[in-house]
Amino acid sequence: MSQQKGSQRKEDGIRSLARLPRATVLRLSWYLRYLQGLDKSQTERVSSQELANALGVSAAQVRKDLAAIGSLGQPGIGYRPDDLAKVIRSVLGLDRTWPVVLVGVGNLARALLRYAGFRQQGFHFVAIFDNDPSKVGQTIENLRVLPMDQLAETIQKTHAQLAIISVPADAAQKVADQLVASGICGILNFAPAVLHVPHHVSLVSVDLTVQLEQLTYLVLHKNQDASQKPPG
Amino acid sequence: MSQQKGSQRKEDGIRSLARLPRATVLRLSWYLRYLQGLDKSQTERVSSQELANALGVSAAQVRKDLAAIGSLGQPGIGYRPDDLAKVIRSVLGLDRTWPVVLVGVGNLARALLRYAGFRQQGFHFVAIFDNDPSKVGQTIENLRVLPMDQLAETIQKTHAQLAIISVPADAAQKVADQLVASGICGILNFAPAVLHVPHHVSLVSVDLTVQLEQLTYLVLHKNQDASQKPPG
Repeated sequence: MSQQKGSQRKEDGIRSLARLPRATVLRLSWYLRYLQGLDKSQTERVSSQELANALGVSAAQVRKDLAAIGSLGQPGIGYRPDDLAKVIRSVLGLDRTWPVVLVGVGNLARALLRYAGFRQQGFHFVAIFDNDPSKVGQTIENLRVLPMDQLAETIQKTHAQLAIISVPADAAQKVADQLVASGICGILNFAPAVLHVPHHVSLVSVDLTVQLEQLTYLVLHKNQDASQKPPG
Repeated sequence: MSQQKGSQRKEDGIRSLARLPRATVLRLSWYLRYLQGLDKSQTERVSSQELANALGVSAAQVRKDLAAIGSLGQPGIGYRPDDLAKVIRSVLGLDRTWPVVLVGVGNLARALLRYAGFRQQGFHFVAIFDNDPSKVGQTIENLRVLPMDQLAETIQKTHAQLAIISVPADAAQKVADQLVASGICGILNFAPAVLHVPHHVSLVSVDLTVQLEQLTYLVLHKNQDASQKPPG
C-alpha cells in the first residue's frame, strides 16, 4: 500500500502535512482511539462508514481526512486497522516516546500523573516541579517533586521537549517563560489563562469550561436537530 | 443592532443555529474567553483581525463564524465586545445557570470542583456521588459525597440536566446508563472510554491524551510551518 514508507519517505510525508487544519488533527486522534479499541482478532477491515458512525461525522469527511495523510482505503473494502493506526501514529508523532515535565503539583497534576492513557501513547513523565517548599521532596507516582530552581538543568538532562503547566492562572505566564528559557518546545497548559510563547514554541491550552460549553450548546440545540431528522 | 432580540426572536435564532459545526462552536467559546479577558474600560470595539490574531485563525473565518450567529460587525469599526459576548453567551446557553452533578470523587473531581471557571460561566455543582463507602459522607468544597443509590432522587430534586463522569474507564458506561435513566440530558465524560448514550442525550468526552497528541503534532510540524512563512 502506498502508505508504507521508509524513513526518508516518511519525512517527506510529514513535510507535506504541515498545514493540516486543527479540526483534522483532532479527528486523527479520535480515529486512532477508535482503532485502538477494536478487537484485533475480529477486525480485518474497517470502513469509512464505521469510522464515521463512531465519531459522528460523515463518511466523506473520514475519507478526506485519511486521504490527506496518504492513507487511501480500498473502495468497498476499507482500511486495515493496524496499517491505518500506524500511519496516524506517525503523523501525530506517537511512533516515539516523549519525555514530559510537569509544573504545579495540585489535584489536577495528581490526576494527570496517574492517567494511564499518557504512558500508553508514549508520554513519560520524567520530572515534576512546584514552588511550594511543603510539596518539594514529596514523592508522587515514583517522582520526587523538585524545586523550580532545578527546572532548566533537569530539562536539559532529561531531553524533555514537552511540558504540562498545572499551576494557578496568575502564575502560568511566569512558568511558561521559564520553560521556554529552559528549551521546552511544546506546552500543554491547563491554567485558565491566555499564555504568550515565542513562535518556535507550540502551545495547546485546555480550558475545561470550553468543554462544558460545548455540552450546553448540544443540549440546547438537540431538540432542534432531532426535529430535522427522520424518527428512529 | 440586529442581534438585539426579545425572547421570541432569540428562540428563533437558536432554532436556525441548530447545525453549527463543532469546530465553530469551539471557536465561539474561544472568542468569548478572549472578550471576557479584555479590559472593558479600554476597549470599545474589537476587530475581526484582533480576534483572528488572538485565536490563530483568519479574519475571514472570524467574520464567517460571527455572521453565522447573526452578529455582523461594522466594516472598518468592528464589534462591540459586550454585545458580541452577550450573543455568544446566548448561543452557548451561558445566559442561565446550569445545576451539575458529578460522579466519581478522585483527584480529577477535586480539581474540577475547585475550578473557578465553571462557576463564572454559570455551572453550579449541586451534588457529588461515589460508590466507595469510605468517600461517602466526606465534604469537598461544601458538598457532601452521596451514595449512588441517591442519584435519581437527587437529580430530580435539583433539576440537574448536566453531569460530569470522572470514574475509572471500566465503570463509566454503567454510570452513564444510571445518569440517563435518572433524566440527565448532557454528560461531560472524563473517563477514557467510548460511551454510548441514547440519541436524546448529548455527550462530550474529554480525552486528555488527545490534547497532548495535538501538541506533539504541532511540535513535529512546527519547523515545516515556519519554513513556509516569512521570517519574523
